[in-house]
Amino acid sequence: MKMEWINNHTVLIVGLGLIGGSYAMALKRIGYHVTAIDIDSEAIKYATDSGIIDKGSTSPDKDLIGNADCIIMALYPSKLVGWISENQSAFKEGVIITDVTGIKSSVVYDIQKILRPDAEFIAAHPMAGREVYGVKNSDDKIFRDANFIVVPTDRNSKESVKWCEDLGRLLGFRRVSVLSPEEHDSMIAFVSQLTHCIAVSLMTCDDNEHLSEYTGDSFRDLTRIANINENMWPELFFMNKGPLLNRLDQFIDEINVIKEMIANEDDEGLKEKMRLSSKRRRNFDK
Amino acid sequence: MKMEWINNHTVLIVGLGLIGGSYAMALKRIGYHVTAIDIDSEAIKYATDSGIIDKGSTSPDKDLIGNADCIIMALYPSKLVGWISENQSAFKEGVIITDVTGIKSSVVYDIQKILRPDAEFIAAHPMAGREVYGVKNSDDKIFRDANFIVVPTDRNSKESVKWCEDLGRLLGFRRVSVLSPEEHDSMIAFVSQLTHCIAVSLMTCDDNEHLSEYTGDSFRDLTRIANINENMWPELFFMNKGPLLNRLDQFIDEINVIKEMIANEDDEGLKEKMRLSSKRRRNFDK
Repeated sequence: MKMEWINNHTVLIVGLGLIGGSYAMALKRIGYHVTAIDIDSEAIKYATDSGIIDKGSTSPDKDLIGNADCIIMALYPSKLVGWISENQSAFKEGVIITDVTGIKSSVVYDIQKILRPDAEFIAAHPMAGREVYGVKNSDDKIFRDANFIVVPTDRNSKESVKWCEDLGRLLGFRRVSVLSPEEHDSMIAFVSQLTHCIAVSLMTCDDNEHLSEYTGDSFRDLTRIANINENMWPELFFMNKGPLLNRLDQFIDEINVIKEMIANEDDEGLKEKMRLSSKRRRNFDK
Repeated sequence: MKMEWINNHTVLIVGLGLIGGSYAMALKRIGYHVTAIDIDSEAIKYATDSGIIDKGSTSPDKDLIGNADCIIMALYPSKLVGWISENQSAFKEGVIITDVTGIKSSVVYDIQKILRPDAEFIAAHPMAGREVYGVKNSDDKIFRDANFIVVPTDRNSKESVKWCEDLGRLLGFRRVSVLSPEEHDSMIAFVSQLTHCIAVSLMTCDDNEHLSEYTGDSFRDLTRIANINENMWPELFFMNKGPLLNRLDQFIDEINVIKEMIANEDDEGLKEKMRLSSKRRRNFDK
């Protein structure tokens, strides 16, 4: 019963950036008491002044931590295990913890291994973002057309999975799904990490500034995500290196096939590829 | 003087698809007498009934051709030379001809070589399109945020270049530029053909139908153009094979560099790439 949302009066957000701030906005609107910890005093001041959170601290305040019924970890992925390890002595008994990290296998198992036995960590990936950063750009509207993935392991209870699915719905996500860490990481390597590698490569392979006046919608669409947070993404790539390298090979092999078809003027081969890509892409818009 | 738009009373569109139909709509609205030739009787009937054109024919009618002060060739690229060669005996003296083809070197020189000496062919590329086809989807609003490239050769007169720039402005394009056929083809290989190869490869390298529920905006953006006209694009690729293969190599080399950086966890190298791509991409939105 402790895992029903009705009983989670106080939510602590650790890491008050764009996603942490957007979680805070959504949860406070529904009526939860929302607190936050972030090392950036300006982020805490802004969020408190503008009513995004009820209370905040720039240090791991034992009272803030101990009063939280649930904790949302919205730090950079490499910081998760360390923060929990250092601060879990202050956790309320039976606390439920979730995260917003874009890769899973390399963090979830480590957290669950070191976590206090009375607490439960259920991983989640809110697949939403913007090209701008920081709590000042928080906006829970970014969740509305987005997917929320709950990523349980064998160590998670049915109740925590249900709790986390409910969280996704409370935040306003359009669709809530459940995947294993391995399924999640392979999927995210393909639909997100590979696409960011492609967008960056398109922008860096040519000094195309002089081309900007000729770029139509297609080039703009393919490179929108090339404006990228260089502090976060290399870390995400390295922490998901295996699946990402597989997906890069899969894509590079295929574009080499397309290239050979063009070199050989293989009209029927290319038409077949285009029919397949058109059919699959149309299914996306159904 | 014959090249001023005020004197081009009658415009003949050859090939009444999406782009031909959109040209017709824009020019008729301004007050020109617009005629069209297309082998598809339904296209001609629809365009006549809905007032997109004043008059049309499904065959190369000598009267329609002979009355045209200017001719807009909106056929598939491989058909251009043949159609002009077969029908130029019916052209009005001093006629000016332009086109809408997405590749230039492989058609412009051939047309200018066989063209009647009293006529002039000035190439143009309206960089606009939609994911739907046919005259029924015509809409001259697609020109409003798009670029219009005039592509003259040494054989073109200053007057025809000016005439064609004016055409781009009359059609409502946001920006009108002038490039040589070689500059145009290298640019289009990069910003349009390469991006279509990437989008198709992303859709065909994995049976990703089961992934559609997890795809966020980035994957959707990168694959929007994967819904592609398989009858037109292979032809465009083959007719621009040299520049396109160069651009494919340029991109594949770069994404392999990015892949090696990930494999080697080269944090500083990746950050440098991301800073460069972010800087260049932000310039696009200025």
